[in-house]
Formats: sequence, C-alpha cells, structure tokens
Amino acid sequence: MANPTAAMLVIGDEILSGRTRDANMHFLAGELTKHGIDLKEVRIVSDDHPAIVAAVRALSAAYDTVFTSGGIGPTHDDITADCIAEAFGVGIGVRDDARAILETHYATTGHELNAARLRMARIPDGALLIDNPVSMAPGFSIENVHVLAGVPQVFQAMVASVLPTLTGGAPMLSQTLRVLRGEGDIAATLSALADDFPDLSIGCYPFQKDGAFGASVVVRGQDGARVDAAITRLARDLGV
Amino acid sequence: MANPTAAMLVIGDEILSGRTRDANMHFLAGELTKHGIDLKEVRIVSDDHPAIVAAVRALSAAYDTVFTSGGIGPTHDDITADCIAEAFGVGIGVRDDARAILETHYATTGHELNAARLRMARIPDGALLIDNPVSMAPGFSIENVHVLAGVPQVFQAMVASVLPTLTGGAPMLSQTLRVLRGEGDIAATLSALADDFPDLSIGCYPFQKDGAFGASVVVRGQDGARVDAAITRLARDLGV
Repeated sequence: MANPTAAMLVIGDEILSGRTRDANMHFLAGELTKHGIDLKEVRIVSDDHPAIVAAVRALSAAYDTVFTSGGIGPTHDDITADCIAEAFGVGIGVRDDARAILETHYATTGHELNAARLRMARIPDGALLIDNPVSMAPGFSIENVHVLAGVPQVFQAMVASVLPTLTGGAPMLSQTLRVLRGEGDIAATLSALADDFPDLSIGCYPFQKDGAFGASVVVRGQDGARVDAAITRLARDLGV
Repeated sequence: MANPTAAMLVIGDEILSGRTRDANMHFLAGELTKHGIDLKEVRIVSDDHPAIVAAVRALSAAYDTVFTSGGIGPTHDDITADCIAEAFGVGIGVRDDARAILETHYATTGHELNAARLRMARIPDGALLIDNPVSMAPGFSIENVHVLAGVPQVFQAMVASVLPTLTGGAPMLSQTLRVLRGEGDIAATLSALADDFPDLSIGCYPFQKDGAFGASVVVRGQDGARVDAAITRLARDLGV
C-alpha cells in the first residue's frame, strides 16, 4: 500500500536571499522517512501574503499532510497565521488558551506580555494548538496543515509533538553501494535492475572526489529482504 | 524599479528522503542576490514525471527566470530533459552539437560513449546548450528555463555560464544588527522602523544561544545610504 504523503512549506526571506541555510527541511525529511510518510514536495516562499496563501492552498489540496515553518513570531514580518486563516477562509484572533500559555510563561520569566508578544496568541478559528516546550508560544494545526516555528530547536520540538498524531506507513528502508566508476559505465546495469525490481526505488547519485568520478547507488523500499536481494545482485553484476 | 525575479526547481528524491542536504539552493540564492535578481520561490520535487512538468510550467509562467538542478545524467532516473520538452510541447532527441562535445570528451578520457552516456546529448528542440567545463555533458536553456546539473561543482560552473547572459537589477545591500533581547521586546521598535522605511525590507530572525534569546535584525535595500540610516536609527532606538 502506498504510504501517506506530505509536503513542507518554508516561509522566509532569509533562505531565499542566501543569508541562512535551511536546516528544518533536512530534519523533517529524515523524521518523515522514519515514520513511513513520503515527503513529496517542498516549497520555499518569501514573507509575501499572496504567495503564502496560494502555496498553502495548493499543497493542502495535493498532499495528505502539510508542515509549514517560520513566520509565527511577534514581529511585523511574522504573517503566517494570518495567511493560514485566509487560505482556509476562517477568522483569526487572540485565543484564551494560547494567551494563558503566554501569560504563565512571561510571568515566570519576568518579561512583559506586550502587544507584540500577544500576537503569538492569535490563532485561526478552529485550529488545535501544538505544544512548544522550548519557548512556549504554540504552533497550531488546522485541517491537514501543521504550522510550526522556524527556529530549529522549536521546529524540532513541535515535529516531535505532531508526528505521533499522524498515521504512518511502512518505514522506507535503504541500502547504499558506493561505486568508483562513472555513472555512464553502470547505467545499463542499473536500468536492468530497476526493471527486475519494480517495487523498489533505485537512485544513482554521482560524486567527484579527488578528481575521480563515482556514484552512490541507493536502493529504497519497504521490504528489507527485497532491498537486500537488489543490493546483492547489484554488487555481483558490478563485480564489487 | 523592481528587480527581475527568479525561481529554482530542485529535482531529486535524495533531498526529499533526507539522504542528502541540498547545497545548490544556498549557492544560487547568494549568486542571484549579488546579481540583483530576486529569488522568489524554490520548489523541490521528486523524480516524478508529472510533478516535474507541472512545476516547470507553473514557475516558468510566474517568474522571469527559472533554474533547475538535477536529473540530467546518464541513468534511468534522469528524466529532467524529457520533462522539460513535454512542459514546452517540443520534441527531444540526440543533437549533433551535444554529441560532438561528448565524443571529444570520451575520446580524450578513454571512456566509451555508450548508449547511457549518449542520453546526455538528448536536448529539447530549440534549446541552447550551457557550457559544462567540469564534466563536459552540457546543460541547456529553453524559453526562460535554465536546466543545470545537480552535482554541486557542475551546478556552480553552469551558473557561472548562465548569469552573465541575464539582465540583473541593483544588487541588494544588507546590514545586520545582532541584539541580545527577545524578539518580543524589540517588535514595536522594528514595526515603527518598517513604517518609516517602506523602501527597505526589515527582517527579524530569532536565535537561541547558551539558553539566552536574541535576534538578528537584517535591513535590506538597493540604496546603501538608506540601509545605513535605518541601521543607525535602529541602534539608537535600541540603545545598542
């Protein structure tokens, strides 16, 4: 049976300007793979209202689950919650349960719950809060979209809160064979292997090291015995 | 005047499975910023024919220029060229000029130009070749889409070939102020600054270090004197 599908929407000018290298995508990809959910698409858009709304609608319609990262903090460029509300045609306002979390947190830490921080309690109508054990300001889930913070420590904690609530499939298993030959020399062998193991995904990823060409062949599938059989045959066919 | 816009399409299962961390996006983002072209969106899709065709069409229609990376090698999972041809409704076949480049290269290196390698000379009708000084197999440009290899050294060399052919705008200049205060404490100041400098982009990127919360405020714009003025005022307003 096919695994559930997921997409990710990364929101933030800082990635697109080259200032910051995204870390959340790589983390989420690994966690979803372990959980048996296939990450099928990632989009990165800037802090631009229409672009975010359009991407949320498109991804929510096309995939079982969507994760967003970024844009839910207290500053003027944090517009994700409003965009999500618009994408689903619901209202948004400060919600009592979210406000209570912030009040408790800031009372404890001695900071002021000012107007800017109170923006983080603005939650689209009908959404469920996502626990944030790191910095308390919650994420939220609405329909099939999970709205998470962009700071990596917080993003990771929120993924840990959400993942157990999702139905996973069979985890993808993979084995890799590194071959010190050009892709072009092994392409016919790989093609024949792919024909004989249509239930597996066989990818070839070239690399260059010290001026020599090589390739990592990755065999992926849900049945460990089949992955074993394919890698064994590949090693035999290539004489490695 | 607004700068030209660009999008990037990353093609490859290996990123979405979490096996590989994409390096090309971060590189391209930095190069485009220097060249005065605004990278507005990135999409990452798997080695899936319909997904690639749909993404190429959508991005080509929405932005001035599109760059793709990955999927133009000699193996069975390299389907990008065929997808590009389909996206633009043109034919595809082995082209003499591309074949000549490969013949020369493999004659020199003593490798065989076999059927798999000859796939790399399959070019959509009407496309222009992109020089590949690293491993010779060319990329190509068709309409506003530039199709580049996924191996980072080759991707970077191809970007260097393509960029001088594109009209850039004014490069974006940026200055950053790191503040050891929570975002919520500086949000009102930033919001007032954004109101008074509508020609600039003012982003706030929180971080945590050694348990303390801080934020990097990034001011970006095309006019260096304006960026200076905004950063100077921000430092004064925040007393740093």
